[in-house]
Amino acid sequence: MAGKADAKEEKGITAKKASDFSEWYTQTVIRSGFIDYTSVSGCIAFRPDSYFVWETLQKALDQRFKGIGISNAYFPMLIPEKHLNKEKEHVEGFNPEVAWVTHTGDSKLDERLAIRPTSETIIYDTIAKWIRSWRDLPLRLNQWCSVLRWEFKHPTPLLRSREFMWNEGHTAFATKEEAEEERAAVLKIYGDVLREYLALPGVVGEKTQSEKFAGAVASYSIEHLLPEGKAIQGPDTHDYGNNFSKAFEISFIDREGQKRYAYQNTFGFSTRELGAMVAVHGDDKGLVLPPKVARVQAVIVPIFKEDNKGKVLAAASRISAELAKSIRALLDDSDAYSPGWKFNQWEMRGVPIRIELGERDLSKDEATVVRRDTGKKESVPLAKLDKRVAELLDEINEGLYGRAKEFLDTHTFKVKDYDELKSIANSQKGIAQAPWCGSEACEKSIKEETGAKITNMPLDAQAHLKGKKCIYCGKEAKHMANFAKSY
Amino acid sequence: MAGKADAKEEKGITAKKASDFSEWYTQTVIRSGFIDYTSVSGCIAFRPDSYFVWETLQKALDQRFKGIGISNAYFPMLIPEKHLNKEKEHVEGFNPEVAWVTHTGDSKLDERLAIRPTSETIIYDTIAKWIRSWRDLPLRLNQWCSVLRWEFKHPTPLLRSREFMWNEGHTAFATKEEAEEERAAVLKIYGDVLREYLALPGVVGEKTQSEKFAGAVASYSIEHLLPEGKAIQGPDTHDYGNNFSKAFEISFIDREGQKRYAYQNTFGFSTRELGAMVAVHGDDKGLVLPPKVARVQAVIVPIFKEDNKGKVLAAASRISAELAKSIRALLDDSDAYSPGWKFNQWEMRGVPIRIELGERDLSKDEATVVRRDTGKKESVPLAKLDKRVAELLDEINEGLYGRAKEFLDTHTFKVKDYDELKSIANSQKGIAQAPWCGSEACEKSIKEETGAKITNMPLDAQAHLKGKKCIYCGKEAKHMANFAKSY
Repeated sequence: MAGKADAKEEKGITAKKASDFSEWYTQTVIRSGFIDYTSVSGCIAFRPDSYFVWETLQKALDQRFKGIGISNAYFPMLIPEKHLNKEKEHVEGFNPEVAWVTHTGDSKLDERLAIRPTSETIIYDTIAKWIRSWRDLPLRLNQWCSVLRWEFKHPTPLLRSREFMWNEGHTAFATKEEAEEERAAVLKIYGDVLREYLALPGVVGEKTQSEKFAGAVASYSIEHLLPEGKAIQGPDTHDYGNNFSKAFEISFIDREGQKRYAYQNTFGFSTRELGAMVAVHGDDKGLVLPPKVARVQAVIVPIFKEDNKGKVLAAASRISAELAKSIRALLDDSDAYSPGWKFNQWEMRGVPIRIELGERDLSKDEATVVRRDTGKKESVPLAKLDKRVAELLDEINEGLYGRAKEFLDTHTFKVKDYDELKSIANSQKGIAQAPWCGSEACEKSIKEETGAKITNMPLDAQAHLKGKKCIYCGKEAKHMANFAKSY
Repeated sequence: MAGKADAKEEKGITAKKASDFSEWYTQTVIRSGFIDYTSVSGCIAFRPDSYFVWETLQKALDQRFKGIGISNAYFPMLIPEKHLNKEKEHVEGFNPEVAWVTHTGDSKLDERLAIRPTSETIIYDTIAKWIRSWRDLPLRLNQWCSVLRWEFKHPTPLLRSREFMWNEGHTAFATKEEAEEERAAVLKIYGDVLREYLALPGVVGEKTQSEKFAGAVASYSIEHLLPEGKAIQGPDTHDYGNNFSKAFEISFIDREGQKRYAYQNTFGFSTRELGAMVAVHGDDKGLVLPPKVARVQAVIVPIFKEDNKGKVLAAASRISAELAKSIRALLDDSDAYSPGWKFNQWEMRGVPIRIELGERDLSKDEATVVRRDTGKKESVPLAKLDKRVAELLDEINEGLYGRAKEFLDTHTFKVKDYDELKSIANSQKGIAQAPWCGSEACEKSIKEETGAKITNMPLDAQAHLKGKKCIYCGKEAKHMANFAKSY
């Protein structure tokens, strides 16, 4: 069988991240056993290490959503074509990438059913029945599911997959203000979880009208910068205003007896973040997993020969059991592979800490502890091992975040003129931040001429806009915008 | 808008469970706000109360799966037609109910893609690459997802939905014995979770060859008996032997250097259990939720008039906050509805405990506590309220389980002859347990003549088979079998 001979996961990583990012990325996610291709193009298999990252993120987000009053629900994966067509911008945005069910068994369906590319239309058609009075609001739901967008000619695992998992929050409020408050709270949750769990920084900002979500009044995103100098959109929130509530008749009678339309938000965080995590933190040895999302946080590799095997393994087993009380520790005691081979494997898989235990370590009541992120080695007295390992796990997360933030900051350029913007875009050097007049014409011209689009308009960069002129047309600037080549 | 006028959730339940089970069931799940219909026939919306039950079950099962060494993974929702066709019995079992994707955007696909009715074929095609040596085994994966089976002419919410959520475990072992050990462990987990979380008893047994899963060597199930006297299959485990590993070339080189095929299991627990829970425990007032899966475990309803509102609400709020430290408590302090209306609503929604707080209660430093399952009222000193409520939640779960088990036991009849079996089947009285020779011919004749199929062959009833004759043909009996009309 062909698959057996060329199975890739035993090969090491040969491509270099700095010189061939794209090949390095693919080798890293596949050969480390993180994910795998399947026979459905663009749809990947999440193996246990990657699924663990996702379920950890899910728990962290879910707990925070519930903390601000959002409940989980679940709606069908199929959407009748007529519903998908109800909101004009929305259907135009999604129709080209919808997978259509036309038959069940041997029968042709009367009406085609779309596999959800996103669930607005099936959810709003359903909840319209649940909302009649101001007493029924707010209605704040979230759904965990996978969605399908058959959009990519060249899918990239995790970063651009045709099927991906996400949360999709769908909420309805009586007032604009409540909706706004929720969007701010959710953006904060997204940013906190990215930092705390994935050690990922990002740029928080508003999308332009041409880059916003299909059907929204306004969209807000967290944008990442990948090491190759390209940006990629992370989690987002959307202000729907009354756009969908009018299309789906999500109305209510207010306290004064007047009929009004609900204000709606949506928000999503997807498995694309796993791709950003790999791209930002990984190195030429493979994955580097942030400790909170690593299925194995510390691997214990005993180093023994035939004559001291029993003694070393007994100590390793004792130490591993002790560590397992507070962290996710794994003892790799197989004698089918050499310690050196094991070091390479666990490094490729991104395990944050390796603990080497040889007779020399044990004779001094010590262990050799190696950080995956920096490669730094230290001898730690066994009596202090659990405390030191816990400290190191925190330090690794902070270190990863710090280096990623530094990369983002040093690759964000406040450009003086259009030439500088062009030069940054052409050399794919990072993000060019510049004042912009707000016109779609300028945005479009810049994109056509440089390949860089407006990723978003950073919230924290809008303060000092007074007197600034648009980088392209020279008219009064209305926004500070981030321009970058983008996934 | 039509949907607004006839919205059903404000209506009470009018049908009687004893005399019109089917109408009672539908009214109960819809009007209580537990689930709702959607515009996709056979596919329902899980509203927060029902999704909470499911996510609680998920957590309980997931923790136990991980405890025995099973890891989560995720595979694509789409399956190429050629894979689905690889295992003969499997494809024959599922093809009639598969939803087919034929187009994406405006393009026709070269090969049709099935939405997973179950994921064997896409998973096995993928993991075949991961298994080459005995060192790669066991591989024990589980996936949480929804699947689609377009099978039912008359779908029943939860009990027979076209899309349902489940866990699907897919594991591969080097030896038959390890696979067998896992199946026993998983069946025990399923039984424990059903009892502990849903207060549901069941009959554990092997399915017959004609009723086993399509492609399995043998299947094992937990069968429930619903109040209307019909059985319904609950969670199950399947022994695939080498059937799929041969079809998908899941082979490995053993320690002796010989090529061998893996032994495989699957197992599943689905949202159908929520339907069984509703059917078994509910009553003419609506849902009765087992405490561990109730989103609200105790609702506090203050009883006040204009002149004592402030005082009563302040006390209710204090008591509610105190209870919320240990259980899921909710204060219903709205003044838009009367206490009586609230009592009915919360009873319909199945909340296990209602705590009434009026001025008379408060003057005695007491609360009136009402059990949803028995309707029993008691006065509880406020100082002991949290302790008593915790006790009652346990008592309610035990009470629900005890009554359901008694119903199952008293409606399982060890029949003497075929006439008695026929009479039980005809009157839909419950389960007829009888010796059976093991021939498909007898099984088929009995089903045709009585409408009762063999639900399973209870493991604990096989001991005393010696000398028994088949209830139909009179030849030597090989199994003790449970016959019942079934969903």
